[in-house]
Amino acid sequence: MPKVYAEFMAIVNTLENHYKDMQDMEFTIEDGKLYFLQTRNGKRTVQAALKIAVELVEEGMLTQKEAVMKVEPKQLDSLLHPNFDTEELRKSEIIAKGLPASPGAACGKIYFSAEDAKERHEAGEKVVLVRLETSPEDIEGMIAAEGILTVRGGMTSHAAVVARGMGRCCVAGCGDIKVNEEARNFKIGKTIYNEGDYISMDGSTGNIYAGAIKTVEPEISGYFEILMGWADGIRSLKVRTNADTPRDAAQAVKYGAEGIGLCRTEHMFFDADRIMGIREMIVAKDEASRRVALDKLLPMQREDFVGIYEELKERPATIRFLDPPLHEFLPHADVDIKELAIDMGITFEELKATVESLHEFNPMMGHRGCRLAVSYPEIAEMQTRAVIEAALDVKTRKGYNIVPEIMIPLIGEIKELKYVKDIVVRTADKIIAESGTDMKYMVGTMIEIPRAALTADLIATEAEFFSFGTNDLTQMTFGFSRDDAATFLKHYYEKKVYEFDPFQKLDQTGVGKLVQMAADLGRKTRPNIKLGICGEHGGDPRSIGIFNKIGLDYVSCSPYRVPVARLAAAQAQLRLHGGEKNK
Amino acid sequence: MPKVYAEFMAIVNTLENHYKDMQDMEFTIEDGKLYFLQTRNGKRTVQAALKIAVELVEEGMLTQKEAVMKVEPKQLDSLLHPNFDTEELRKSEIIAKGLPASPGAACGKIYFSAEDAKERHEAGEKVVLVRLETSPEDIEGMIAAEGILTVRGGMTSHAAVVARGMGRCCVAGCGDIKVNEEARNFKIGKTIYNEGDYISMDGSTGNIYAGAIKTVEPEISGYFEILMGWADGIRSLKVRTNADTPRDAAQAVKYGAEGIGLCRTEHMFFDADRIMGIREMIVAKDEASRRVALDKLLPMQREDFVGIYEELKERPATIRFLDPPLHEFLPHADVDIKELAIDMGITFEELKATVESLHEFNPMMGHRGCRLAVSYPEIAEMQTRAVIEAALDVKTRKGYNIVPEIMIPLIGEIKELKYVKDIVVRTADKIIAESGTDMKYMVGTMIEIPRAALTADLIATEAEFFSFGTNDLTQMTFGFSRDDAATFLKHYYEKKVYEFDPFQKLDQTGVGKLVQMAADLGRKTRPNIKLGICGEHGGDPRSIGIFNKIGLDYVSCSPYRVPVARLAAAQAQLRLHGGEKNK
Repeated sequence: MPKVYAEFMAIVNTLENHYKDMQDMEFTIEDGKLYFLQTRNGKRTVQAALKIAVELVEEGMLTQKEAVMKVEPKQLDSLLHPNFDTEELRKSEIIAKGLPASPGAACGKIYFSAEDAKERHEAGEKVVLVRLETSPEDIEGMIAAEGILTVRGGMTSHAAVVARGMGRCCVAGCGDIKVNEEARNFKIGKTIYNEGDYISMDGSTGNIYAGAIKTVEPEISGYFEILMGWADGIRSLKVRTNADTPRDAAQAVKYGAEGIGLCRTEHMFFDADRIMGIREMIVAKDEASRRVALDKLLPMQREDFVGIYEELKERPATIRFLDPPLHEFLPHADVDIKELAIDMGITFEELKATVESLHEFNPMMGHRGCRLAVSYPEIAEMQTRAVIEAALDVKTRKGYNIVPEIMIPLIGEIKELKYVKDIVVRTADKIIAESGTDMKYMVGTMIEIPRAALTADLIATEAEFFSFGTNDLTQMTFGFSRDDAATFLKHYYEKKVYEFDPFQKLDQTGVGKLVQMAADLGRKTRPNIKLGICGEHGGDPRSIGIFNKIGLDYVSCSPYRVPVARLAAAQAQLRLHGGEKNK
Repeated sequence: MPKVYAEFMAIVNTLENHYKDMQDMEFTIEDGKLYFLQTRNGKRTVQAALKIAVELVEEGMLTQKEAVMKVEPKQLDSLLHPNFDTEELRKSEIIAKGLPASPGAACGKIYFSAEDAKERHEAGEKVVLVRLETSPEDIEGMIAAEGILTVRGGMTSHAAVVARGMGRCCVAGCGDIKVNEEARNFKIGKTIYNEGDYISMDGSTGNIYAGAIKTVEPEISGYFEILMGWADGIRSLKVRTNADTPRDAAQAVKYGAEGIGLCRTEHMFFDADRIMGIREMIVAKDEASRRVALDKLLPMQREDFVGIYEELKERPATIRFLDPPLHEFLPHADVDIKELAIDMGITFEELKATVESLHEFNPMMGHRGCRLAVSYPEIAEMQTRAVIEAALDVKTRKGYNIVPEIMIPLIGEIKELKYVKDIVVRTADKIIAESGTDMKYMVGTMIEIPRAALTADLIATEAEFFSFGTNDLTQMTFGFSRDDAATFLKHYYEKKVYEFDPFQKLDQTGVGKLVQMAADLGRKTRPNIKLGICGEHGGDPRSIGIFNKIGLDYVSCSPYRVPVARLAAAQAQLRLHGGEKNK
């Protein structure tokens, strides 16, 4: 049918030229007549998407800006993480499904405690850590695991957030499995999976598979670098990363991070050799003993910052002071309290009394963040000393021009910020003066409490920058705890009361209004105030669009989301200035 | 010195005429020359203050408006509660001091459990209930006690709020006493006070005394009624009450309440004969079994509302639907769970699993309020039925024109309100249609979640009234839990970061801004929207000034604060329109 074929080719060319993209077309030929039923942009792997976009520019069919719009940012995830072997995956059976909490594919033997996971990992096994939910004490087991599977918790549970930060595969809130921690197994329906059995998991879909499925490492092609270069030329939002270690910082810089937007100093204290120092501080009865304990932590904390400043070279780093409630550093089960009391050389009763005195009804809204520094100014002093001394050291040795950014968390009231800032400034100025060199530094605050956003004009009289902590801001604006919300949010989705998880995609109507208000009020007081965002939303393409519109200076996200954020920021900028798209 | 005396009398007259008040003056005479050192309004008991104010009007020295400004609203508290005999008090020793959580004087024998307090009260003893902190399960012991003393918790802890509601004396957060619940005693320093020992307590000062001090009942004079009448003529804010029982409603009406602003329906479920019904509902595995349990609760709940509507006559009542997290209705200690499981005819494991499944990290921000109605619409159905059937019953029997006001708590999003309102409307309309009579009713919402305030223009498309729940709104705007804040707020006061407790006096800068915003946005959508406030602030004179300025329609407070609120509302109105003061 040469006539029909010629007609077909002409239409195909018209369609591809019109859509400027590879087309997935349906057609039929009846009685020698050609009917086109449908056309749409063809689905493709991210590798293919990058190649097509770049080649279409080379062919002169697309502008660079158009090419940047052709790749879905979320697709980049699969470029940065292992994936399952397609053949093996096809033959595997899904045994359970949870939330796709941190992308990537993993397989390993299941273990039910962080200790076991760490031990088996060190013995050379690939392990998957299975927990009801994780807590900061599980951190070493999480590092040791290929993947983390939790029964409870949502997309912003401890497991999910930490796993994304580490680029570790995680499936959370997998209520299908019934864990029996004592028997060291879990049950799905009637099947029992014992400690040491292999499972495989896909953190991009939430699927859990029985047995081991081969994984393949991703390949980053030259097309990726080319397209990301174009994106960087377009975007106006800078992209920083949330990183707490020199290793994370290095990883993020490799992915294009322009600095650290959130360095959570408490994560440095959970290491086995450091947690003792903070525990001693917690059980200390007076300021003098607290200072003794803090003095032990100082060199370790300083060393972390030295490592980070060295990795970042002159890129900026926002360092957040101690944030979590202190009970997170202590065990809660009597058996663990007993053991620790012996290690610390105090009585069980004494330690138990401390643990109990730290009990809170609603720890999320308890004694944490800057409230710790108001109660115990010596903590802020030690942390200031560690930051400033580290910066001076790297500056002197390497010649980098470092401007430390110290961030006070959980501020709700200007006097609270002023109180803590005064401690920081007094300590920092003294150290700098004694050093004989000169160094600028900045003090700013998280905006994560509704009252801080509402009074941002006052807060900005003291704060040199704002970083929106949209996780907590979302919790308090909606009045629900992200750790608890999963149980009732499922009813909300079923009944179409909510259409999306506000912890994943910024709620523009409510939380977005507060962010906009705070940005406006902050700029009114301090026109050049630096504005960023360091919540989970910093890596979400749809939320990045909102932040770009509000005119923030940067978003900060976990290292593995940096490329996603760079591309999303470029697309957001192109959408905002639609008219410029074809220039 | 007749010349000096004449001069003295002239000055005295000038001063008293100028200040239009009794003066407390300091003067000296040196070398025959008169020096006036100081003058200020003389201190007086509330009885004297009322008498002086009314008599000065009768003498033509003050206008009624000026007289209304002469009495400190908080002083009225002591008119409505027992006071200590002045002579005996003078000889008594203060042994400890806590927070003045609910005014009045009390003395009684100390008991350490609600059961003991109730039993000894029924045996004819006067008792003081001493608890680390109270929970809803203690309610009967609290009713039985003359006074309630807690070790933990602030001015807005459970003990404090419930005690104020009942007009019961309470001292909270008295950390001076070390309770040993097993030994049934408490220690202050080295002195031990055993079960059955007498103590006395002053809920207006927070003072605790050893032994029994005689109390005297207050006397309400005619002057009180006269001055309150003038205040009522001046104020523009209406004053309602927070009341959950016909008895509280009657008490509040006696004190001048113009309706109920907050009827907490859950309090009705804590009664021994009703809690079983709600517990059955909680352990129910499906909707059908939940409905069976709810059917048992319906007649009891309806009966409560009948009693309330009868007491109120045609005064309005805002009835709030079930608010607390469900775990509050279940025991938490294994021994209690075992006992209850037997009573309920289910296994310990089953009940324990239910209790555990209801555990939340931050219950304040958990599965409560309207979230319960979204998950279990049948609860809202039963409550609607109880309200509407009760109103129809009283309307038919008594001929009152009742317009039920149904309030949905913890709304954060318009679709959430619409979902629950649809259930209410569907149920109510059906019952009214079947009754053959006609009755109007209103559906509104609490504004207690920051997001509700921020999106009040949307919320008002469905809500016919707003009632500001300033307790929760303060918690979420500041990001601290009122149950936990005491531990760190003390450092805030010491360091002058905060000057007052935002749970007692409304924070005008932050929370007040949200209230103002919500009022403006609500009126924009629905110009005649009814606006009230039912948080603890409704009884605080300084906060009432803020609400009057924002232009709310009413404040609602506990019955014993109604006179305080009436007077404070009049004074606020006079201050707002200063120019009219002397008319």
